[in-house]
Amino acid sequence: MPSALDAIIASMKLSSLGEFGLIELIRKASYAPEEAATSPASHLVVGIGDDAAAWECDDRIQLGTTDSLVENVHFTLSTTSWHDLGHKSLAVNLSDIAAMGGTPTYAFVSLCCPPDVDSDDVMAYYDGLNSLAHRHGVTVAGGNLTRSSEIVTTVFVTGVALTNSLMTRSSARPGQVVAVTGTVGGAGAAVAALQRGQEPEDIPIALMNALLRPEPRVREGRILADCGITCAIDTSDGLLADLQHICDASTVEVTVELERVPVNPSVPSLSNAGRLEALQGGEDYELLVVGSDDALAEAAEKLKVPLTIIGRVNSTSVTPSITVVDGTGTPVDAARQGWNHFHI
Amino acid sequence: MPSALDAIIASMKLSSLGEFGLIELIRKASYAPEEAATSPASHLVVGIGDDAAAWECDDRIQLGTTDSLVENVHFTLSTTSWHDLGHKSLAVNLSDIAAMGGTPTYAFVSLCCPPDVDSDDVMAYYDGLNSLAHRHGVTVAGGNLTRSSEIVTTVFVTGVALTNSLMTRSSARPGQVVAVTGTVGGAGAAVAALQRGQEPEDIPIALMNALLRPEPRVREGRILADCGITCAIDTSDGLLADLQHICDASTVEVTVELERVPVNPSVPSLSNAGRLEALQGGEDYELLVVGSDDALAEAAEKLKVPLTIIGRVNSTSVTPSITVVDGTGTPVDAARQGWNHFHI
Repeated sequence: MPSALDAIIASMKLSSLGEFGLIELIRKASYAPEEAATSPASHLVVGIGDDAAAWECDDRIQLGTTDSLVENVHFTLSTTSWHDLGHKSLAVNLSDIAAMGGTPTYAFVSLCCPPDVDSDDVMAYYDGLNSLAHRHGVTVAGGNLTRSSEIVTTVFVTGVALTNSLMTRSSARPGQVVAVTGTVGGAGAAVAALQRGQEPEDIPIALMNALLRPEPRVREGRILADCGITCAIDTSDGLLADLQHICDASTVEVTVELERVPVNPSVPSLSNAGRLEALQGGEDYELLVVGSDDALAEAAEKLKVPLTIIGRVNSTSVTPSITVVDGTGTPVDAARQGWNHFHI
Repeated sequence: MPSALDAIIASMKLSSLGEFGLIELIRKASYAPEEAATSPASHLVVGIGDDAAAWECDDRIQLGTTDSLVENVHFTLSTTSWHDLGHKSLAVNLSDIAAMGGTPTYAFVSLCCPPDVDSDDVMAYYDGLNSLAHRHGVTVAGGNLTRSSEIVTTVFVTGVALTNSLMTRSSARPGQVVAVTGTVGGAGAAVAALQRGQEPEDIPIALMNALLRPEPRVREGRILADCGITCAIDTSDGLLADLQHICDASTVEVTVELERVPVNPSVPSLSNAGRLEALQGGEDYELLVVGSDDALAEAAEKLKVPLTIIGRVNSTSVTPSITVVDGTGTPVDAARQGWNHFHI
């Protein structure tokens, strides 16, 4: 990126610059050239800009990732219970470890909340978090509690992976196919229904579960990595936005066939318009992977959830892009982007 | 703790229960008995309740710690610049790694802020954070940005230590002496002056630096650990409150001699009343250590900052407590506790 552009965006409001523009600025500011030779950095395998960071520790790779949930941005207590909040605050991080093909190990939990919150609620939060942690063999090893006016929870999760089985965003190659685990669009349909004013109890439970209690694809991530797949991301920002991250990191162009997209069967509209919404909605926490036909076929046999091929990598490109086509091969407009934290 | 007490405090407001009561509840809820045999937990050396967690990774100990700074709780932008906020958000975590005798390695930075914040401000935050990171050989390896209505920054830092040189809170023994690096009371005096309505520019720069730009004692922590000292904590909550954590974890009673306490020379009142305030004020980020006379003497020679003996461990006790005595050996009332995040 030219420095003139840096100067322009360096004085922008976050609402204009956007989350990803800012991350790029931060990434550039964080890696000083002279730092490359220092000890910890030299063990860094994956830094800012992937689902999790990775560093070498003897013969294994250590992973680390963190994500925050903010009241009235990511959730409201009117539709999210404290138990679900605990579950989800860990789930979104386990999903990042899963997307690297790793095994999560430890969680560190920061919870900021108003002093008039009841301790029962905080314990319900930890109950939701610990239930998920125990199912995945994760130990809560630390954290902290702080007063704040709105609820902000930031969880950090470590994990381990084998050196030769790390999945990143940057390894998609022409000729490979694009596939996604499970179904997408469920969480987005629940958000849309809530925004239309529907009561949570009137929304199909499968959609509310997709939004409030996503099950991170940890086991699936390991199987995919074991089958030799080296490119993955989780669909937290929306399938298209996340696929764009893969295109950018791998400098490739991809075609997605709209009618192949596996939409959550409880989504009201299963037309192409519904499929497009499912591609654009966020928070599904499925794994989006790119690999050879053979590797994906082998993985599909071993997985207990569907793995659906939805597209193909066409070519390398210095202007990486996604083309979404309908059943006749005609491109459709899929311009709307995924979640941007600084849109007002 | 008996379960009847748990039942009583389980339904309290956080403002009544307090930070440490809640941490104890969470600690108990987080370690399920059956979990002890699972893989990651079995590598855990230090869990919830110390400055940082520690787990074995081949022949080294991995450390992890996280801390949050919340606008209008820990800082206001009227007295803290974005650059200082970045510095301090990392410094408080490096201080935790230092208190374990570790070497910090990676940082993960979560910044939640309103969308009308200028990107220049966010970059100033990262500039402050990165300057400190580079000085300590720490690499920012990840993080995330999220919209919120107030600024909340949570930083997670990893570190490494040698298996036989980890400092914890639980290893103080009768006959050992208590010492502290540098001086205390500076940050507390700055907070008191600001609360009295003094303008930041009218407050001695040494006090404002103590509050806004604490220098984590990373090098000092390693030297102390190398000298065989195995008990340490950082004075983030206030020297007395932090010493009480050591007493609780080590089940010992300690006597502190008030007139030995090394108070920041810019503190207005250097009387015993001023020393008592210095013992009670938080955010000094010095290292409070307990060890043998010989080990402390060896460390004092190697350190570039003063290491001052302020007290002695008397005996083990099931009701661990601190007695503060004046120059005549008479106990003084030092009942006021350190920082509690959920006081309203």
